[in-house]
Amino acid sequence: MKQSLGKASIRPQEPVYILNSASVVGTKEGQGPLGLLFDQVGEDDMFGCATWEEAESTLQKKAIGLALEKAGLGQEDISFLFAGDLLGQSIATSFGVSRYQIPLLGVYGACSTCGESLTLGVITIAGGFAERVACVTSSHFASAEKEFRFPLAYGNQRPLSASWTVTGSGAFVLGGQEAAQQMKQAGKGAARARITGMTVGRIVDYGLKDSMNMGACMAPAAASTIEQHFMDFQTGPEDYDKIITGDLGKVGQKVLIDLLREKGYDISCQHMDCGIEIYDGDSQDTHAGGSGCGCSAVTLSAYLLKQLEEGNWKKVLFLPTGALLSKTSFNEGKSVPGIAHGLVLEKA
Amino acid sequence: MKQSLGKASIRPQEPVYILNSASVVGTKEGQGPLGLLFDQVGEDDMFGCATWEEAESTLQKKAIGLALEKAGLGQEDISFLFAGDLLGQSIATSFGVSRYQIPLLGVYGACSTCGESLTLGVITIAGGFAERVACVTSSHFASAEKEFRFPLAYGNQRPLSASWTVTGSGAFVLGGQEAAQQMKQAGKGAARARITGMTVGRIVDYGLKDSMNMGACMAPAAASTIEQHFMDFQTGPEDYDKIITGDLGKVGQKVLIDLLREKGYDISCQHMDCGIEIYDGDSQDTHAGGSGCGCSAVTLSAYLLKQLEEGNWKKVLFLPTGALLSKTSFNEGKSVPGIAHGLVLEKA
Repeated sequence: MKQSLGKASIRPQEPVYILNSASVVGTKEGQGPLGLLFDQVGEDDMFGCATWEEAESTLQKKAIGLALEKAGLGQEDISFLFAGDLLGQSIATSFGVSRYQIPLLGVYGACSTCGESLTLGVITIAGGFAERVACVTSSHFASAEKEFRFPLAYGNQRPLSASWTVTGSGAFVLGGQEAAQQMKQAGKGAARARITGMTVGRIVDYGLKDSMNMGACMAPAAASTIEQHFMDFQTGPEDYDKIITGDLGKVGQKVLIDLLREKGYDISCQHMDCGIEIYDGDSQDTHAGGSGCGCSAVTLSAYLLKQLEEGNWKKVLFLPTGALLSKTSFNEGKSVPGIAHGLVLEKA
Repeated sequence: MKQSLGKASIRPQEPVYILNSASVVGTKEGQGPLGLLFDQVGEDDMFGCATWEEAESTLQKKAIGLALEKAGLGQEDISFLFAGDLLGQSIATSFGVSRYQIPLLGVYGACSTCGESLTLGVITIAGGFAERVACVTSSHFASAEKEFRFPLAYGNQRPLSASWTVTGSGAFVLGGQEAAQQMKQAGKGAARARITGMTVGRIVDYGLKDSMNMGACMAPAAASTIEQHFMDFQTGPEDYDKIITGDLGKVGQKVLIDLLREKGYDISCQHMDCGIEIYDGDSQDTHAGGSGCGCSAVTLSAYLLKQLEEGNWKKVLFLPTGALLSKTSFNEGKSVPGIAHGLVLEKA
């Protein structure tokens, strides 16, 4: 059964649903405009742990547990787990998900990882390889600053183009038609959304080297994936209620809209960015916006899926965006290439 | 079409083939027992680059190019690329594969990444999401020492339980029935092997903390996946000509055989380890054996697939093994959990 489409896209022939999901965030996210929508907000950002890395692992652990609980499922109901984070060797994941004895496929796409994990989850279910899978991603402001930038105690100044890494984890339980029906019959409600198409991104490198302006580094990748998506699915901006990038922030948003205008697409009416939505930039001092693996994941779970459920939107293109750098590549003077994966989400 | 099997396994209902593959290695691997079998051996381990990380990226670039060339294909024939390495944020991959404008799905499973990338490749093809995909993984002795251990110039002593990270990259082009036939008709020969089953591993953590004895850290994970595999497929050691782990080395091999004996399986006649095969431990001073993402990948491409092609083996279980640690997790006193993914390879 052919489920590929165009040059880089997939159209699943079997329906695949987000059965349920959960979001767990830190204090700053809880104080932001979406604060009341998150499933759980930590009392402080250590989450009872001794290190930032353990705190991030705890976010993943809690998010998976909560998503399973909301779907009325146990870990034994999940065939495979797709998981990743931003830390070197994905240690937030390794130590976060190990208590769940679910076969694990680790993924890495920087802040696009949420999109990648969902893409692989859909492939696995629509291909008949599993009834249900789970996808989880996370980031933590303090573990990311330690990994990529400066010690917190150093109190470095941040330029206005810099973004603020979201402390949060979003977990999603995916399933096919039968799994959705079983959930409904068990009194656990309807699926949150249906995933009807995906466009896998390519690495796009415009040669930018500024790790304090990742929005600009990632915007060309988002533009590339959106253009490819429109070509593969033969659609345009007007076919979507919203086109939602992961964490371009205010600088990246402008670059994206300009780049797509040059290619003949005007997405200015549809575009929205999770990184802009999650904080109140003026009062929360987050500059360009939120970023990190957790940014698009928790915004999807708490806010975007809610809009689809309530019928405010019928069909959106969701594009987590990633900046492919490490402190080593940065220190060696390399550029910051970007990648973005697109998913079409529709009302279930 | 149901393609799942048991608790953690997949049996593709459509045939999936390794159409062709390539291995590119460093000088030490070229001098080892498998030296003459590799497609390309570098003149030195910098591969003409300015940094170790760039050298590792070059390994991936060359391996993909060579695998495509051997299969008579161009990058436009490949729908998706599954790729990963050991470095923080997988930068060897990001800078290695970006010249190929193939939609990228980054994977991370430490040294088990070769098994994970092949698993996801098979799922994508057997599910009808692509005609052909490519899978590539790499490691480099010097970039890994820099990432995980000590500066090379420090000349640290290594205990006998330590392994030596393989400098090498293995790339594999996978395709379905039609792709295999097209290749044959184009005069590019038969597929190298068929992948007929997969068992996805869980994280197994026995609490070991010694990063200089990763074989012992990974052996419990290998034992867990092998046991699960036997249960899911209702097979035993005698059903395989060889059971081949990725990089347990001499210490890990002993632990694995003992652990499985306790579970009622004797694999001592079938067991082989890529890390033991790739170097002559006595003359090359590599202690427990080879390790790294590249170890199982280049051994599979150069040696294991050759044995299947020549009919010396008919069916093997191939299990790349990974140790899930980072320098941060090590320095914070965490354990080294393991993971292993199993694939059944048969003569095409």
